[in-house]
Amino acid sequence: MTLLQDIKETFVAGSDEPGDRLHLEDLHVGLRYTSGTHAIDEGEIVAFARQYDPQPFHLDHNAARDTLFGGLAASGWHVAAITMRLQVESSLKLAGGIVGAGGEFAWPTPTRPGDILRVESEILEIKPLRSRPDRGMVTIRSETRNQRDEIVFALSVRLVVQRRTDND
Amino acid sequence: MTLLQDIKETFVAGSDEPGDRLHLEDLHVGLRYTSGTHAIDEGEIVAFARQYDPQPFHLDHNAARDTLFGGLAASGWHVAAITMRLQVESSLKLAGGIVGAGGEFAWPTPTRPGDILRVESEILEIKPLRSRPDRGMVTIRSETRNQRDEIVFALSVRLVVQRRTDND
Repeated sequence: MTLLQDIKETFVAGSDEPGDRLHLEDLHVGLRYTSGTHAIDEGEIVAFARQYDPQPFHLDHNAARDTLFGGLAASGWHVAAITMRLQVESSLKLAGGIVGAGGEFAWPTPTRPGDILRVESEILEIKPLRSRPDRGMVTIRSETRNQRDEIVFALSVRLVVQRRTDND
Repeated sequence: MTLLQDIKETFVAGSDEPGDRLHLEDLHVGLRYTSGTHAIDEGEIVAFARQYDPQPFHLDHNAARDTLFGGLAASGWHVAAITMRLQVESSLKLAGGIVGAGGEFAWPTPTRPGDILRVESEILEIKPLRSRPDRGMVTIRSETRNQRDEIVFALSVRLVVQRRTDND
């Protein structure tokens, strides 16, 4: 099995056939879906922070105590990245993959070592693009929540989604 | 030297003394600053994608060819994380660190292997918080650009910034 095959199999996981992947026409406003879970531990928090966000409150318990966070917390961008992973593994298998154009976000609650995260999503808007008849723009609102149901990352993102063609 | 000392030294790099770190009162609307650069290579793109965004266009040249990206591209969240790293290392050394509350973003151009990224930032708004006299909210607009000056990640983020107290 080649690497390429591995990737393709990962990509269509949860779908019986590549032809089952979802196009713009298969989606509807109000569609909801929930991801699996990810338990975040201290090692992962520190490893991400060392590489991408090396600030005391993401690196070390003692250094974090006297900061705004009052203790070790994951980088917000780490929580965003985990959210992406959970979305890629979720049941919404888009034909062209999950391709974001932009959006809005908030981190209402810090993410702590031992937290168990999941993502709850809902399609807010679906718009065909006049300029590009082969695709449309879909706005998805997602809430990444911890085991206490607190929202740690709220995201409203615009995705580029393929329309169905004669070949699909 | 303990780990904690290491972290503190990283944190105040570019500042002569911890007392030189910036508080809300030290900032002004229109203040601009530019980060250093980060050259992104294929290995880094694939490593991030395997962990956080395992989709064909972020993992493999061949698989990426027939996608919307037309070739290997970095995960947008990877570009966001690199942007954070460049901001932490930049000259804007905030007293409480860089603590984001939320914001808006866009990925106008894909990031490719070999791209050299830098971040250009400007303070857009400074607001003391009535509810919390010890801090304020600062909105910073940043543009992460590649070596062709194309914007690969535009971010407008609200940061929580400490006000100066009698102890500072």
